[in-house]
Amino acid sequence: MRSLKTPRGGYDGKGVRIVHSADEVEDWLRDGEVLLVEELVEFRRELAQLVARRPSGELALWPIVESIQRDGVCAEVIAPAPRTAGKLADLAADIAVTIAEQLDVVGVLAVELFETTDDRLVINELAMRPHNTGHWSIDGSTTSQFEQHLRAVLDLPLGATGCRDPWSVMVNVLGGPDSGSLADRYPLALNDQPTVKFHSYGKQSRPGRKVGHVTAGGDDLDEVVYRARAAAEFFHS
Amino acid sequence: MRSLKTPRGGYDGKGVRIVHSADEVEDWLRDGEVLLVEELVEFRRELAQLVARRPSGELALWPIVESIQRDGVCAEVIAPAPRTAGKLADLAADIAVTIAEQLDVVGVLAVELFETTDDRLVINELAMRPHNTGHWSIDGSTTSQFEQHLRAVLDLPLGATGCRDPWSVMVNVLGGPDSGSLADRYPLALNDQPTVKFHSYGKQSRPGRKVGHVTAGGDDLDEVVYRARAAAEFFHS
Repeated sequence: MRSLKTPRGGYDGKGVRIVHSADEVEDWLRDGEVLLVEELVEFRRELAQLVARRPSGELALWPIVESIQRDGVCAEVIAPAPRTAGKLADLAADIAVTIAEQLDVVGVLAVELFETTDDRLVINELAMRPHNTGHWSIDGSTTSQFEQHLRAVLDLPLGATGCRDPWSVMVNVLGGPDSGSLADRYPLALNDQPTVKFHSYGKQSRPGRKVGHVTAGGDDLDEVVYRARAAAEFFHS
Repeated sequence: MRSLKTPRGGYDGKGVRIVHSADEVEDWLRDGEVLLVEELVEFRRELAQLVARRPSGELALWPIVESIQRDGVCAEVIAPAPRTAGKLADLAADIAVTIAEQLDVVGVLAVELFETTDDRLVINELAMRPHNTGHWSIDGSTTSQFEQHLRAVLDLPLGATGCRDPWSVMVNVLGGPDSGSLADRYPLALNDQPTVKFHSYGKQSRPGRKVGHVTAGGDDLDEVVYRARAAAEFFHS
């Protein structure tokens, strides 16, 4: 089994296909597309390590997070990633720092990682910008990835990247068949959820399009996941 | 001794004079101004209780804060106000709730209070809007006063008003004789202060004008005050 990718237009799972033989990408081959063939990685879960770097060399890393994909699209992010303390977190931090320094990155860099079934970390993708796996930091960290990106590109001292809560969970809100206003759903989504934050991107809703996200925080991960999903559910249309 | 106030144009200590006899406001009397004469209150310190209320009746109170004035202008705010737990905090909350309900307030209401030397709470001023004594909430509370004001006027469920840190300290940044850019001072002000946040209002600097504020948070009040003042000091010009 291999993973095939088109070299352009790949985003949120688009332009990726898992195949057993060449005839499964006959349509792509017919179009004369250049294709990238990769080994299919057997992974346990997906992680992401975000780091910010300023021209003077200062670096700041947020805790490693777990991202859960659904249909090739990031659905949820848990910060910090459960069961990563110690060796795994140190390795992810080393990888991110090495890449940021060797590529002379300025700003926020997201390193998406596979935790393989044989306990390795494999780099999946790099994004040289604030990233979906860092949205939790707006409410959940002392410094949001957007503030940090500005500090970094302006070569200002970087902000603290600690967690405001033991656990933060971000759930993406995707557009559905009904393109109605998200604002109509605020009263129900926010009801009895005083600590949940909703961020609307002000985008026209289209099925599957990321139009906002919800963040919840707290001491008990199960409860935080429950609350974030419950609020996000009201926005799915 | 009396406090005299002009009924209009009063702000940040302007239009207020403490007098022993009428000839000390001869200039105001000559202008034919209507004046408000008040008993001068002997107070130990100034406190503020902020509350948000939505049309449906839901209320949310932030912890009571202490505000420290310099030359009639708010210089610093400590959240929560030290030594207020229990009776004092309960009384301030009762006062704010009573006013919000009786005046049918919608949005954020700031109740400025004197804690008198004979242990009473006296209302100094009311502001029906987000207020300088609530700026700490942007970084220090789960819900900032600005977010809460929007929730309230839109009649949406109110957000949680708990503190993110045991102590938050806000220090106002006032313009000085040098009208240079605040941004030039970011590198020094933010250096080695990763948890301090600076907010610039994008205003033209004028001597004594509030042009921004700094917020720090942490476990040790003395240290938080020190850090907030140290950062703010770099912006005073």
